[in-house]
Amino acid sequence: MGMITLLTDFAADSGYPSSMKGVIYAIAPTASVVDISHGVGRHAIREGAFLLWMNVPFFASNTVHCAVVDPGVGTDRKPLIVRSGDQFFVGPDNGLLIPAARRLGVLEAFVITNERFFRKAVSRTFHGRDIFAPIAAHLANGFPPEELGQPYEKYVKLSFGEGTRHGSIVKGEIVFVDSFGNLVTNITAKLLQEFAQLEESVSIEVGSKSSQLRILDAYGNASENELFLTIGSHDQAEISVNLGSAAQRLRARAGDALILRMSR
Amino acid sequence: MGMITLLTDFAADSGYPSSMKGVIYAIAPTASVVDISHGVGRHAIREGAFLLWMNVPFFASNTVHCAVVDPGVGTDRKPLIVRSGDQFFVGPDNGLLIPAARRLGVLEAFVITNERFFRKAVSRTFHGRDIFAPIAAHLANGFPPEELGQPYEKYVKLSFGEGTRHGSIVKGEIVFVDSFGNLVTNITAKLLQEFAQLEESVSIEVGSKSSQLRILDAYGNASENELFLTIGSHDQAEISVNLGSAAQRLRARAGDALILRMSR
Amino acid sequence: MGMITLLTDFAADSGYPSSMKGVIYAIAPTASVVDISHGVGRHAIREGAFLLWMNVPFFASNTVHCAVVDPGVGTDRKPLIVRSGDQFFVGPDNGLLIPAARRLGVLEAFVITNERFFRKAVSRTFHGRDIFAPIAAHLANGFPPEELGQPYEKYVKLSFGEGTRHGSIVKGEIVFVDSFGNLVTNITAKLLQEFAQLEESVSIEVGSKSSQLRILDAYGNASENELFLTIGSHDQAEISVNLGSAAQRLRARAGDALILRMSR
Repeated sequence: MGMITLLTDFAADSGYPSSMKGVIYAIAPTASVVDISHGVGRHAIREGAFLLWMNVPFFASNTVHCAVVDPGVGTDRKPLIVRSGDQFFVGPDNGLLIPAARRLGVLEAFVITNERFFRKAVSRTFHGRDIFAPIAAHLANGFPPEELGQPYEKYVKLSFGEGTRHGSIVKGEIVFVDSFGNLVTNITAKLLQEFAQLEESVSIEVGSKSSQLRILDAYGNASENELFLTIGSHDQAEISVNLGSAAQRLRARAGDALILRMSR
Repeated sequence: MGMITLLTDFAADSGYPSSMKGVIYAIAPTASVVDISHGVGRHAIREGAFLLWMNVPFFASNTVHCAVVDPGVGTDRKPLIVRSGDQFFVGPDNGLLIPAARRLGVLEAFVITNERFFRKAVSRTFHGRDIFAPIAAHLANGFPPEELGQPYEKYVKLSFGEGTRHGSIVKGEIVFVDSFGNLVTNITAKLLQEFAQLEESVSIEVGSKSSQLRILDAYGNASENELFLTIGSHDQAEISVNLGSAAQRLRARAGDALILRMSR
Repeated sequence: MGMITLLTDFAADSGYPSSMKGVIYAIAPTASVVDISHGVGRHAIREGAFLLWMNVPFFASNTVHCAVVDPGVGTDRKPLIVRSGDQFFVGPDNGLLIPAARRLGVLEAFVITNERFFRKAVSRTFHGRDIFAPIAAHLANGFPPEELGQPYEKYVKLSFGEGTRHGSIVKGEIVFVDSFGNLVTNITAKLLQEFAQLEESVSIEVGSKSSQLRILDAYGNASENELFLTIGSHDQAEISVNLGSAAQRLRARAGDALILRMSR
């Protein structure tokens, strides 16, 4: 068996993810491979990190996540394995794997050194296929990270931070814009619930825009085109428009600062 | 084993279909999962229903189709299981599952009530992951619908209707525009063949446009850019342009009324 | 087991690839199916042929590649099986399969004649589902091509050619533009290395544009937005822009002639 996920910025139809799958299945023929996304913005490490972070709680023990958003391919950036909880991560040392791994518990990182498990001819431009895919397949086959690399502490740290409360305001950040235009924040459900009640009105500031909106518990309870705040499926506060796009309405994007202000 | 298909309006690269797959594989590790489409227009229930309808004849016994186009998520719309022929359907009670299920025979519907099979924390915004995916996986594992829910008759009905003949004209509707811009109608092959012969010319009216076209049996038998009528792969009359898009040529879309008129 | 790849111009979300998978899994339930691409340009045979060519070295013995870019569907163009190395190819006789098959060794072609293995009702518009998918599944199940068709020599030939050296210049062609806008040429790594050294500067002419660029070994060694020449992951000379698109910069596309000129 074995379960391997793939996340890249290669584009699903580019022929590059399928080359990785060919390599994987040749080594781990009975693995199941799940595509998380191949539509990550080119070199958009934080976006890829979020997509990985949002998916890992739903995967079983021993899943191997192979993630390649890798502007530094071919340079001296390190190739990593990370073990956390009971799942594994493989990819470049640029922060991409870290939030997801940290979500699962205490992480251990390894720099991949055992070239015996690489493809024979490693290209300088496609480590996804030549290094990360075969390493992921060997992990799925049960090889321990200790046989594939060396412990490594100096990996690149990456974090989405966490919203913080200051009296009657909460400061946070938009960390992800999903495919519906929902604005996922780094304000936890817990913090939002401490701060305000369901149905209550709060004001938000994103960029130069300020809006008044209700806290609702489901899209279907909002009016058509209503901008509202909800606890989304990531268990984080999320700004949504019922039947529309909050990203378009607020002209907001990942990285934008966000302030919530109580109306009381 | 077990075979599960997925159809959503989430976008393939959004990270949401992969969360559903994580949940599915954790429950049914040896299942095969096939994506029908994640590119259904947002909340486009009829479009999703057609994509499901067109696919079900090609899947084997015991396939479980998990379909989520769900504007009412988090409200009191019911979660459904439908059994028909020897296949299963899981999704919201908004008509999405019905044409496909009816295509396979007499259908039995169940409202899902057994929360023991849901994910532990059910979000208000992502029942695809928290309810429908685990239920689909349990069905694929052989759990009967009777253990997961209660018989339910009052499900939302949805039908694409069927073209009808009135002397020298046939009235129908465009029910789907495919990825090539072919206009799939609700006029069956049988009705078309009763009405007109291969190579014969008929006139069509779609919207305010009227055109004269031939009935042909293959794209390759049409001239370049010829608008023609054929029996498409869905066994329905289809309006096509050889090497082009009938949807663009006629500015037509799903839902448009269509009249065929004999030239004789 | 069995491994089957799919490549089409149908669009991933169109519902057509999933119909092919339904047919495949009904015949070969334990097969693994990998999508190479469903985003090939409509009827773009050469583009499809390149995507197949670039992937085959990474797939294991007995893989069956089912490729359908098929403007002649429903006409008298032949349906083919090709065996080469230890892999199989199924698709229309229009050149699509040939470069990939030739890459693996000496190829044997068969025209598919045994209709017993087709779907019962073969449409005139979707041989991918009705002929090629079931034949691919039977090949994956171990049926030899000899039982499915007859040897056939007169198949359509297709080749990307190969760059040639003429003293201080190399003449070649852009054969593929990848998802990053990299321009893949038909100039082999070997020819490029005979012609010029790493870090050396060469001039290129593509269309009416002429540029001076360096030969580099990794994207990360180029300056931001630098246009450079590298040996890409296909082991062919490739024109790239670091963090940008060479196709946009040079307004180049597949089929464009290319001249490299030594600076020495």
